[in-house]
Amino acid sequence: MGDKQQTLARLAEMVDGELLGDGATVVTNVGDLDQAVAGDLVFITKAAMAERLNGCRAAAAIVPTGVEAPSLPAIRVRDPYLAAAVIHQWFVAEPFVARGVHPTAHLGVDCSIPDQVTIGPLVVLGDRVQLGERVVIHAGVVVGDDVVVGDDTVLHANVSVRAGCRIGARVAIHDGTVIGSDGFGYATDARGNHVKRPQVGTVRIDDDVEIGANVCIDRATFGTTWIQRGAKIDNLVQIGHNVVVGESAILAGQVGIAGSTRLGRNVVMGGQAGTAGHITLGDRVMVAGKAGVHNSLEAGTVVAGIPAFSHRQWLRASALVPKLPELARAVRALEQKLEKLLGASY
Amino acid sequence: MGDKQQTLARLAEMVDGELLGDGATVVTNVGDLDQAVAGDLVFITKAAMAERLNGCRAAAAIVPTGVEAPSLPAIRVRDPYLAAAVIHQWFVAEPFVARGVHPTAHLGVDCSIPDQVTIGPLVVLGDRVQLGERVVIHAGVVVGDDVVVGDDTVLHANVSVRAGCRIGARVAIHDGTVIGSDGFGYATDARGNHVKRPQVGTVRIDDDVEIGANVCIDRATFGTTWIQRGAKIDNLVQIGHNVVVGESAILAGQVGIAGSTRLGRNVVMGGQAGTAGHITLGDRVMVAGKAGVHNSLEAGTVVAGIPAFSHRQWLRASALVPKLPELARAVRALEQKLEKLLGASY
Amino acid sequence: MGDKQQTLARLAEMVDGELLGDGATVVTNVGDLDQAVAGDLVFITKAAMAERLNGCRAAAAIVPTGVEAPSLPAIRVRDPYLAAAVIHQWFVAEPFVARGVHPTAHLGVDCSIPDQVTIGPLVVLGDRVQLGERVVIHAGVVVGDDVVVGDDTVLHANVSVRAGCRIGARVAIHDGTVIGSDGFGYATDARGNHVKRPQVGTVRIDDDVEIGANVCIDRATFGTTWIQRGAKIDNLVQIGHNVVVGESAILAGQVGIAGSTRLGRNVVMGGQAGTAGHITLGDRVMVAGKAGVHNSLEAGTVVAGIPAFSHRQWLRASALVPKLPELARAVRALEQKLEKLLGASY
Repeated sequence: MGDKQQTLARLAEMVDGELLGDGATVVTNVGDLDQAVAGDLVFITKAAMAERLNGCRAAAAIVPTGVEAPSLPAIRVRDPYLAAAVIHQWFVAEPFVARGVHPTAHLGVDCSIPDQVTIGPLVVLGDRVQLGERVVIHAGVVVGDDVVVGDDTVLHANVSVRAGCRIGARVAIHDGTVIGSDGFGYATDARGNHVKRPQVGTVRIDDDVEIGANVCIDRATFGTTWIQRGAKIDNLVQIGHNVVVGESAILAGQVGIAGSTRLGRNVVMGGQAGTAGHITLGDRVMVAGKAGVHNSLEAGTVVAGIPAFSHRQWLRASALVPKLPELARAVRALEQKLEKLLGASY
Repeated sequence: MGDKQQTLARLAEMVDGELLGDGATVVTNVGDLDQAVAGDLVFITKAAMAERLNGCRAAAAIVPTGVEAPSLPAIRVRDPYLAAAVIHQWFVAEPFVARGVHPTAHLGVDCSIPDQVTIGPLVVLGDRVQLGERVVIHAGVVVGDDVVVGDDTVLHANVSVRAGCRIGARVAIHDGTVIGSDGFGYATDARGNHVKRPQVGTVRIDDDVEIGANVCIDRATFGTTWIQRGAKIDNLVQIGHNVVVGESAILAGQVGIAGSTRLGRNVVMGGQAGTAGHITLGDRVMVAGKAGVHNSLEAGTVVAGIPAFSHRQWLRASALVPKLPELARAVRALEQKLEKLLGASY
Repeated sequence: MGDKQQTLARLAEMVDGELLGDGATVVTNVGDLDQAVAGDLVFITKAAMAERLNGCRAAAAIVPTGVEAPSLPAIRVRDPYLAAAVIHQWFVAEPFVARGVHPTAHLGVDCSIPDQVTIGPLVVLGDRVQLGERVVIHAGVVVGDDVVVGDDTVLHANVSVRAGCRIGARVAIHDGTVIGSDGFGYATDARGNHVKRPQVGTVRIDDDVEIGANVCIDRATFGTTWIQRGAKIDNLVQIGHNVVVGESAILAGQVGIAGSTRLGRNVVMGGQAGTAGHITLGDRVMVAGKAGVHNSLEAGTVVAGIPAFSHRQWLRASALVPKLPELARAVRALEQKLEKLLGASY
């Protein structure tokens, strides 16, 4: 990362930003506002933070609309957070270097593996696995038979991808995650014993998806569990069989989606939230952390609570829960007053 | 799977069902109602779904009591879901093929390993491990010293079974699951430092248990953490030290059971539910998803909420939570009216 | 373990306890009160439990202040639970035996590895990894480039430590845990697509930390995600990027800490509890199981509920939730009575 550099003027172009100050300023990295070093480009997200740039050792800053004369050369944009991400990506991007297949990796038969890949030590690929260009598979990964992996996808250490699953291009799957384990489905007989329903479907993960560490995505009973393009899934999330996670959905840590539920495009779920099975959350639904969604939700709905209801209403209602003892006392007091009054009146 | 076929008459016998229509109809697979192909046996769970069989390409159907003249040859049973599971199991069952011990697997000393097993690449077995007949251990599994594994059990990729644990017959453990890690027990000294309590017990898993992916089952402090026969545990579940999970219990994804708690037979816990430690849930207790059980529960109890109480009561009570602001307003209005009335009366 | 023995008198000294009875009594192990065998030292935590020592086969007991004449030779201390942990640790402690580097382990270049280590089969170390004395790395562990591991630390099977992370001395990390996967940070563009923020920080784990199985601790966006000395983290816990977990904090199973949140010293969080991001929990804050903390909390606060509030208040308030239907009925009855009264009065 230390080798790249770029003028502020070119970086401003990269994000369609407005240049404030010396465009020839050389930037060598994106840095943290509080720990910036010489050469860094830092960013502030609100105009009110502009004074924090005074005395900052950074070379330049990304600032939001409304900042007029920052104390550092700057790029002004509507969304500094986004511009910083785009520029930081440019700085950390490195040309792909293929390290080939490590001699301790174990490959099955009839695999299709381009020259330009990196397969680490002690990786196991099943039979008929097809890898795209520039795929990176880290140590300890186990890939089942007939799995397909798209171009530029990275599987981190100890990931397991079970037979028949299909992973798109530019996907990242972090360590320990399991793709395609059996869905959780049983029929129960008259004596209370559970008969397993065979789970004969697969998992399909589309392009540009990122999946955190120790996530579980179950294969479908029939058909496909489907993670659509650009969805981002945090650590320790549970995705049941036959679930559809819509394009660019965001699932925070420890979220759980029960079987056959469909999440629309750009759905956002906070940490530890969960949904029942067989329901549909429309596009752009937002579910607060810890919420439990029991019923389908219209596009754009924002919910919280267990069971989940309107987030706006929840803010008011949940603030009253601590006051329930007061409320109960008030009701008893009213009852007593009224009793007394009625006694007095009649 | 594509090679098996069976007449509808024989399949009806297999599930003690009533044959409707041509018993010579040949079935080659169990399929999904919506995506059935020729030769499939599909199922409907309610009589009202019978019209969905019209135009379905399946060869035959499993239908529930109450369906009189289905548009396809059919097997009529009380529980089509169960019959479909039984018949589908028959179709997917394949004779065991022993692949032996992969040359890259690493075995300790004094292990007992039958000829009829499959031990995949890069598996590590400790010393004195005993495997049953037809055991399958997938790539990357690590098994500690003195572990015992029963007949027909399957350990999927990257599972870890720590020393001394005992696993029964026909058990399936999915990828990344950890059996026998240390229980979470500390004593705290006067300065607030935590002294670890040695965790010298083990884990015992009985026959016919299935455990999902990335589950954690801790070893006991003393004695045994015990998963009893036929229990089914979904992904990312946490089972603390010294817990007993009763026969045929069902624990959905991300459930957590704190240390020393006992679950009875056929207990069912919904996703993300949890229990306190040192309590007992009687047979057939049902815990709704997301619930938190603080106290022991009698057999047959059905609960929801945090802390959990009667599910029936919870349905009514939780429906009132969103209306708390209204309720509080009503109480204030009553107070004001009564105040005014009292002012007027006296 | 069966080889050690010690007199009760010496064990009493070890924990600064008072000897009751024959100090020459020989103890060979610490055992469970209910399953004690000859030679065991058992413990009771309350004076009222003293009668359970009658007929117990143990050699001796640890008893709390207030027990006067126990039926077994005894050590009397203020905190028997702590004393038992200290003595049990002494019994299970074994001298370190270095097994060296297993021939199937794969080591990168320029690693620093002392003679006195045990590196199991199929371990993968990256380049420039530095291990302390007496480090134990179990089978299937993957360690990235430039990782530093302190003396006497144990990494259990299939753990993954990503590049650049630093782990202290006497740390234990259980199976399947992932240290240093990418933090979950994206900026979203005008079309709803997510641009990944590079996660260029690392994870620092201080001395005497213990981390359970299948835990995830994300690397920082910039800087460090930091687990401080003596913290204890249970299974399946999620620690977001840039979180600080204070000294001797206790996080029970399935806890989730969102990004940039700081937990003080000796914070305790119950199972399945969670916190929002960017908040601070002061020293000794206690969070009940399942609670959701939305705001920063002063030192010593004890909270429960979602969103969390005073635990004391929560006990009262949550007991009223099941009674909401009653409360609502009472309010309606009051409204009717008052209506009638007003009708009658005027």
